[in-house]
Amino acid sequence: MNFAELITKKKKGLSLNQAEIEYLIKGFISNEIKDYQMSAIAMAIYFQGMDAKETSFLTGEMIKSGKTYDLKGVTGFKADKHSTGGVGDKTSLIYAPLVASFGIKVAKLSGRGLGQTGGTIDKLESCPGWTGEISEAKFEEIVNKVGMSIISQSQDIVPADKKMYALRDVTGTVDSIPLIASSIMSKKLAIAGNGIILDVKMGSGAFMNTVDEATKLAQAMVEIGKNHHRNIAAMITDMDKPLGREIGNANEVREAYETLQGNGPADLNELTEEAVGITLLQAGIFKTLAEAKEAVREKIKNKVAAPILKQFVEAQGGDFSVIENFEKSFKVKNTIEIKADKSGYIRYIDTNKLGYLAMQIGAGRATKEESIDFAAGITLNKVSGEKVLAGDVVMTLKTNKAVSGEFTNQGKLTFEIVDKAFVEPVIIKVISDLDLK
Amino acid sequence: MNFAELITKKKKGLSLNQAEIEYLIKGFISNEIKDYQMSAIAMAIYFQGMDAKETSFLTGEMIKSGKTYDLKGVTGFKADKHSTGGVGDKTSLIYAPLVASFGIKVAKLSGRGLGQTGGTIDKLESCPGWTGEISEAKFEEIVNKVGMSIISQSQDIVPADKKMYALRDVTGTVDSIPLIASSIMSKKLAIAGNGIILDVKMGSGAFMNTVDEATKLAQAMVEIGKNHHRNIAAMITDMDKPLGREIGNANEVREAYETLQGNGPADLNELTEEAVGITLLQAGIFKTLAEAKEAVREKIKNKVAAPILKQFVEAQGGDFSVIENFEKSFKVKNTIEIKADKSGYIRYIDTNKLGYLAMQIGAGRATKEESIDFAAGITLNKVSGEKVLAGDVVMTLKTNKAVSGEFTNQGKLTFEIVDKAFVEPVIIKVISDLDLK
Repeated sequence: MNFAELITKKKKGLSLNQAEIEYLIKGFISNEIKDYQMSAIAMAIYFQGMDAKETSFLTGEMIKSGKTYDLKGVTGFKADKHSTGGVGDKTSLIYAPLVASFGIKVAKLSGRGLGQTGGTIDKLESCPGWTGEISEAKFEEIVNKVGMSIISQSQDIVPADKKMYALRDVTGTVDSIPLIASSIMSKKLAIAGNGIILDVKMGSGAFMNTVDEATKLAQAMVEIGKNHHRNIAAMITDMDKPLGREIGNANEVREAYETLQGNGPADLNELTEEAVGITLLQAGIFKTLAEAKEAVREKIKNKVAAPILKQFVEAQGGDFSVIENFEKSFKVKNTIEIKADKSGYIRYIDTNKLGYLAMQIGAGRATKEESIDFAAGITLNKVSGEKVLAGDVVMTLKTNKAVSGEFTNQGKLTFEIVDKAFVEPVIIKVISDLDLK
Repeated sequence: MNFAELITKKKKGLSLNQAEIEYLIKGFISNEIKDYQMSAIAMAIYFQGMDAKETSFLTGEMIKSGKTYDLKGVTGFKADKHSTGGVGDKTSLIYAPLVASFGIKVAKLSGRGLGQTGGTIDKLESCPGWTGEISEAKFEEIVNKVGMSIISQSQDIVPADKKMYALRDVTGTVDSIPLIASSIMSKKLAIAGNGIILDVKMGSGAFMNTVDEATKLAQAMVEIGKNHHRNIAAMITDMDKPLGREIGNANEVREAYETLQGNGPADLNELTEEAVGITLLQAGIFKTLAEAKEAVREKIKNKVAAPILKQFVEAQGGDFSVIENFEKSFKVKNTIEIKADKSGYIRYIDTNKLGYLAMQIGAGRATKEESIDFAAGITLNKVSGEKVLAGDVVMTLKTNKAVSGEFTNQGKLTFEIVDKAFVEPVIIKVISDLDLK
């Protein structure tokens, strides 16, 4: 086998077989296949695509390049959730305790935020002492005891993807559905599990801008999961608006905690019920989605999952009292209120910009080296579709940075006020083999 | 400007402007644009193509990367001919003296052979002492005095193409019409001139296998030439069969010399008359192709161009008497006759294999480092379409290598004997703005 044969096949639009994909990835890691060859075949894949089998083989080979977690010490059904990344997305912190409250295990690898997108690890670090750097044995122990654990994604996981992504980033080969799908799924499948629910974000705050693109990506990921023997489904959800009312770190943990106690915003409730509901069907605990969602609402009403979030944070060394005493713990020097200049209905129009604004005021990082201000953040006093009167506060920025008129200007560009009331569901589509009627 | 913008445009199938192509080539040479980026954009060009303007800009930028010949010291109309490479193609050695006999100047850069294809420089070196390594001043002096000169293509010519081709060769991006066209034309246009006739080979002994592909390549090259202010035309000619009766080095020079004296095979005469005729029209010496070709036939009949070939060889230090005393000068140890096993009409079917066979018996080189045996070669006792009786010699291999049955086996695979007579013209198509009626 040689590279010339592979590239000729892919240029013609033929499918590569498992041996060929193994050769490609192993060769790339060993530098037998050079960067300039991999970038050329990545561009050929951009134009010719990859079928479900190829994409699954590619994912499998990438997984083999690094560390995997077998979770052999964890008992019971193991569920996982993955979001392609959005602004204000703290769903995992609601999903995991709720799922755990049904006796299902959530052993999750998470990452940090960069640019406009937050990261679960950063959010949890707003609880002093909390760490995502624990041993595999401790990880499994906490999952068994608490029902959930979230740790930092190891640097050793899927090195082939790291090398490939660095190359794709500078060669115009990022926006290829099979390459995105295999990149995401390789990291997801590097940890053993039974059920997966994917949340593919779509809109101004997401990488995918149309339902069509998001659907293709979701289908590709679902196919990979199925080929790797997972019970998998995907939701396509709206990221034209931020999720919930809070964007930041400590404030997002608090919003998650509040949601678990029945005080959450409608969109977070809707998304969580669906995600947890699907996981319950995957685990075989309920027969219909309606029953499952009803059970989720019951758990929220009874506030039984909130203590699980607290136990998990404490099990990993975190002081959860800061969340319970939020106002005292997370004080900021400056508060900026952005007000409506007319009456109407709020419609967020640039979630990406909102994410960058949160970053600029201290809640995120522009480069990997920067630190995060856990107290900084944005509260949306009005969410998308909500009625406002001229002069009402639309959003509040909390920051320890010097106040700049630019923050207000940026904030104002993220929404418009429209005349007519509207309702937009969060969940646009669900892709699943399950009967979700 | 940055690479990301360029690759995004090309992925979408948009055209790059002159400034963008300048940035691409200059960046590639200075290593600001990395090999892995250039290979990715080359693959995008493979899929999306390049329009005539882009291809011309690309050619122009590549030319600027290296040495050019302005031929300021050469007087009169300067003509050039380029063949995309074939087996037995000694046309330049017939074309140049004939064109010179009309007072037109031919100042030509040529290369060496590799693999199945011969090179004009190698062929000329069969005259002891002949060199293609002369100063630019001497080059111009010989062109003015003799009417023609052929020198070795400088290593400094179009370095961007060398770097690009080395990359394309290992990244599956060789077979892109705009990239092939700009590669060939950059080297052709690096030397000043007025008229160009291109010979695009097509068939089993050529890179282009269909009339459609060859036409696209020819059109792309003609457009580049026109955009660089050359009077240019292209012939698409048949390389399903070898050209003439001789394949080798010294024997090809002799065949060229014989053709100039009226003893050439039909296909070489046909090709030469057309190529020289078109050049004469480009130079404005004749009004119609029929007149021009008639004048060429007259020159051949009167043998006036043969001494020009000899003068040129001698002007560059070569002993031409070896060609005049061919049998004495180029003796070989072994002669292998391949005979017809039945009666019928010879049809050559694998010119590529025939080229490789010539290489194997010593007439060519497999790697750049190998030396050539000028006396080795193949004589086609029967050319395509010629009648044979069982037992007739079809071809004769002359070699100083140990005789191997494999040579005979290979030779037999290059032709078949068919029942019906057939005639195939050498010239399939001519692409030109000239009135060639």
